[in-house]
Amino acid sequence: MSYNLRLLISCPDRRGLIAAISSFVSLHDGNILSADQFVSDSGSFFMRLEIEGEGNGFGLAREEFGGAFAPLARRYGMDWRVTHTDRPKRMAVLVSKYDHCLIDLLWRWESRDLEAELPVVISNHDDLRSRVESYGIPYVHLPVTKGTKAEQEAKVLEVLGSHAVDLVVLARYMQILSPDFVAAYPERIINIHHSFLPAFVGAEPYRRAHERGVKMIGATAHYVTDELDAGQIIHQDVAHVTHRHGVGDLVRLGGEIERRVLARAVRWHLEDRVLVDGDRTVVFE
Amino acid sequence: MSYNLRLLISCPDRRGLIAAISSFVSLHDGNILSADQFVSDSGSFFMRLEIEGEGNGFGLAREEFGGAFAPLARRYGMDWRVTHTDRPKRMAVLVSKYDHCLIDLLWRWESRDLEAELPVVISNHDDLRSRVESYGIPYVHLPVTKGTKAEQEAKVLEVLGSHAVDLVVLARYMQILSPDFVAAYPERIINIHHSFLPAFVGAEPYRRAHERGVKMIGATAHYVTDELDAGQIIHQDVAHVTHRHGVGDLVRLGGEIERRVLARAVRWHLEDRVLVDGDRTVVFE
Amino acid sequence: MSYNLRLLISCPDRRGLIAAISSFVSLHDGNILSADQFVSDSGSFFMRLEIEGEGNGFGLAREEFGGAFAPLARRYGMDWRVTHTDRPKRMAVLVSKYDHCLIDLLWRWESRDLEAELPVVISNHDDLRSRVESYGIPYVHLPVTKGTKAEQEAKVLEVLGSHAVDLVVLARYMQILSPDFVAAYPERIINIHHSFLPAFVGAEPYRRAHERGVKMIGATAHYVTDELDAGQIIHQDVAHVTHRHGVGDLVRLGGEIERRVLARAVRWHLEDRVLVDGDRTVVFE
Amino acid sequence: MSYNLRLLISCPDRRGLIAAISSFVSLHDGNILSADQFVSDSGSFFMRLEIEGEGNGFGLAREEFGGAFAPLARRYGMDWRVTHTDRPKRMAVLVSKYDHCLIDLLWRWESRDLEAELPVVISNHDDLRSRVESYGIPYVHLPVTKGTKAEQEAKVLEVLGSHAVDLVVLARYMQILSPDFVAAYPERIINIHHSFLPAFVGAEPYRRAHERGVKMIGATAHYVTDELDAGQIIHQDVAHVTHRHGVGDLVRLGGEIERRVLARAVRWHLEDRVLVDGDRTVVFE
Repeated sequence: MSYNLRLLISCPDRRGLIAAISSFVSLHDGNILSADQFVSDSGSFFMRLEIEGEGNGFGLAREEFGGAFAPLARRYGMDWRVTHTDRPKRMAVLVSKYDHCLIDLLWRWESRDLEAELPVVISNHDDLRSRVESYGIPYVHLPVTKGTKAEQEAKVLEVLGSHAVDLVVLARYMQILSPDFVAAYPERIINIHHSFLPAFVGAEPYRRAHERGVKMIGATAHYVTDELDAGQIIHQDVAHVTHRHGVGDLVRLGGEIERRVLARAVRWHLEDRVLVDGDRTVVFE
Repeated sequence: MSYNLRLLISCPDRRGLIAAISSFVSLHDGNILSADQFVSDSGSFFMRLEIEGEGNGFGLAREEFGGAFAPLARRYGMDWRVTHTDRPKRMAVLVSKYDHCLIDLLWRWESRDLEAELPVVISNHDDLRSRVESYGIPYVHLPVTKGTKAEQEAKVLEVLGSHAVDLVVLARYMQILSPDFVAAYPERIINIHHSFLPAFVGAEPYRRAHERGVKMIGATAHYVTDELDAGQIIHQDVAHVTHRHGVGDLVRLGGEIERRVLARAVRWHLEDRVLVDGDRTVVFE
Repeated sequence: MSYNLRLLISCPDRRGLIAAISSFVSLHDGNILSADQFVSDSGSFFMRLEIEGEGNGFGLAREEFGGAFAPLARRYGMDWRVTHTDRPKRMAVLVSKYDHCLIDLLWRWESRDLEAELPVVISNHDDLRSRVESYGIPYVHLPVTKGTKAEQEAKVLEVLGSHAVDLVVLARYMQILSPDFVAAYPERIINIHHSFLPAFVGAEPYRRAHERGVKMIGATAHYVTDELDAGQIIHQDVAHVTHRHGVGDLVRLGGEIERRVLARAVRWHLEDRVLVDGDRTVVFE
Repeated sequence: MSYNLRLLISCPDRRGLIAAISSFVSLHDGNILSADQFVSDSGSFFMRLEIEGEGNGFGLAREEFGGAFAPLARRYGMDWRVTHTDRPKRMAVLVSKYDHCLIDLLWRWESRDLEAELPVVISNHDDLRSRVESYGIPYVHLPVTKGTKAEQEAKVLEVLGSHAVDLVVLARYMQILSPDFVAAYPERIINIHHSFLPAFVGAEPYRRAHERGVKMIGATAHYVTDELDAGQIIHQDVAHVTHRHGVGDLVRLGGEIERRVLARAVRWHLEDRVLVDGDRTVVFE
């Protein structure tokens, strides 16, 4: 079966890196479909290569690649990983009661706009069950109260594990995850925050945006870390508003931005376009 | 000589306000060129009327308007003011060393894109003198040090007063004004802050934006109040950035946003399109 | 039952119009919630008033308004209409095989983001039946071939008539309507064209945009008239693209613009915010 | 003296190209600062490399590069060129009476935002002389009438030649250049057209945009070819407008877009970021 490899590399920048990597591919008769690279101010090198796989002349079989590439990786001190386009990531969506981000993801998944499996949707409420099930996707209802948070998180993790999930998308989940939960999926939990971070960290950003009298509202998709709304930003977008927009209008308009920003961040993650550089991301669009 | 009147009103909302105001105009044979109104959530009514003046059939002479309108204004508890388009506001620009906002304002002023007199530019540095003087505008250099701040502000106020200035534009002036200075020009000092407020209040917003890894940068034009970067926002805009943009790139791209946002806010103020509603503005574009 | 009236007026501009109209409302103890007016270059006056209805003190009953307003309307030569917010418009959606605009409208309708009844979806294909029926909306399949176009249109009109439809939304319907069909719903058929009109009128705009090498793509929502893609434009939006975007990418990105632009135009129409001014629209946002 | 090389390549795509090119650089101890590549649908390969020059360890002297690279270029059938960052391009600006694009370019040139020499400004009118000369740049006035067009073009070409100009920027020059003139500077004349091409090719686009009732206006920077407004597009941008904007407002708002779009296209060209791909451009931002 035909597939492409995606090779993601980060390491200290050194003379000859691109030549070494591309020559390795060339040596094994690989065809580079796209190549993106970036050197940060602090001297880190980031690269994303998409290479045609075995069916198209590449001389290394899927299971051989790691062994062949390891010496080069060691020599340059690379952090690296390789993925295969015939094995899409398995994505779980966590929601609460707001449906706009969820519906958008479901539609994109159904129309194959997102290259992912979507084995399960998990929610602390039962409201969105029928909509999710109309897409043929299992819906797991795991309610949570203050006293049962640890217990509920354990159950969520169990469901995620049982479905072999690679990526957790918080589509307005409205719950703060514990450090233990976050540690189980490092750089693999994407949240949508309904403000233009770092403005309006925390609760009720639209109400606070209205009070402050801002003339634009926004949304931010970021990886989840231990600090609230402080994870690496993947994508942001905004829209103009005026004095005529009440809080309800901001919620409505903001919802459109949220779903668009979240979908794009998820798409980039699924296509292995996002590399983490400390507190920042490198996004090879 | 032909001119239009601009009537700005704010008062508690009441049934019949629009009828009362427009009937007053009609009674004196006035022609309404444009009418904008807004009622805030808290029940305040805001209105901007543009009416043709004497030369075009309006029955009230310039000096008669106040006496004729006062009883109506009293009855409805109006804050109001009237301006005349043949008497443009007198605007002073305060700058430091950055020239991009200044040059844009000079060009717009020269090309009559801004309806204002520009009697003076004041700076704490002498760098931009020749550029300003090439437009035929006096340039006053008033250096400032930590120890001479009060004294320098007094001199600035004196220059502003001697030029009968109505509007003070801080075009990247880089100095924080004292409460006394601010009190001398309430809702008549416009500042451009080089971030998307309320994100990155204070110094070096571009450096901090880069560290935080944001994917958009912005600028905010606001009235100056006693609290730093907390005045009523008039206009904001943003641009997308990527990991490829270093701090220097953000400064350069941000400069384009700053000059655009500032020019638009100044234009709206000069055309009496901005009314203050507590911590917010109503902008009748 | 409580409702608001929306009064839409267009007529030649004359001194005293706003006073006359607002005094009429005031005379009957009406409370004006919002008032927008515009005078075009050619001297036409357009107004939209939202007034609280009977339950909130307005002295004219629903059925009395026309009789009471007619003399004023006659005096000023007004085209006018009044609608009531407790009687939302009845909207039909016509689709072909593309689902993105349809799904967005369904979601907005279900979440009460659009103030409309949605009694029927009509399609020349049967593909989207189950998705539509999952929202509890009847789906009528009326296939069309070259030879049966007139016949099929007659059936569509019959279905629309039987559901007392006020607004026809072409959500990527992919069929050109005959002049007779258009005449049955003047200024009440909204189409989404997948280009930034007037660029790329007609078929395959994304392919042609790619060939021309444009750096932005767009979508246009407009009323349908007899001339292809030449009706009055209600809303347009665009997105940046680069050389990296193939035709397939343009289709995908364009789909996001299409659904956003169409939804906004439909919303404005449903809220009686759009007035036609010859070949142009006046949109009171 | 320290400089970087920029290597621009286009050729038919083949396996091993990136390895061959980067190995060539590596062989001569070159340090690649940035690398961008793109393969078009039609199988053309485009690459832009920025490499540190002699002062930073590159083993090939400036005059040696061509000889060393030629065999590789021949083998892959490359179109290629190399430029050096210590030799900025020489840019001439051609204007008519509108000053907004010119002033923006002058300011960017003076503030070293554009890496170019600006040896001369040429105009068919004398209006902008003093503004240009205030920047210390020679201003050449070459008036043109219908009957003297060929003669005037010859003089313009002579001035351009005498200043060894690399790039001709038409900053609202308002004259259509003859094919002979265009042939003298292939892919080296940039025009700003005041519409979102391909909409409103030709004269008076703002008036025609207003008549058509569009809800956005735009500007397009493109290389000049023999066909009017049909050259390869480098950059485009737009802004929203409403029914309230008359033709004069469109001209004013459009002017802001024009200067921004033109400046960015010029910047990209000066930094060797634009490659021509038939009727399209590849822009390595």
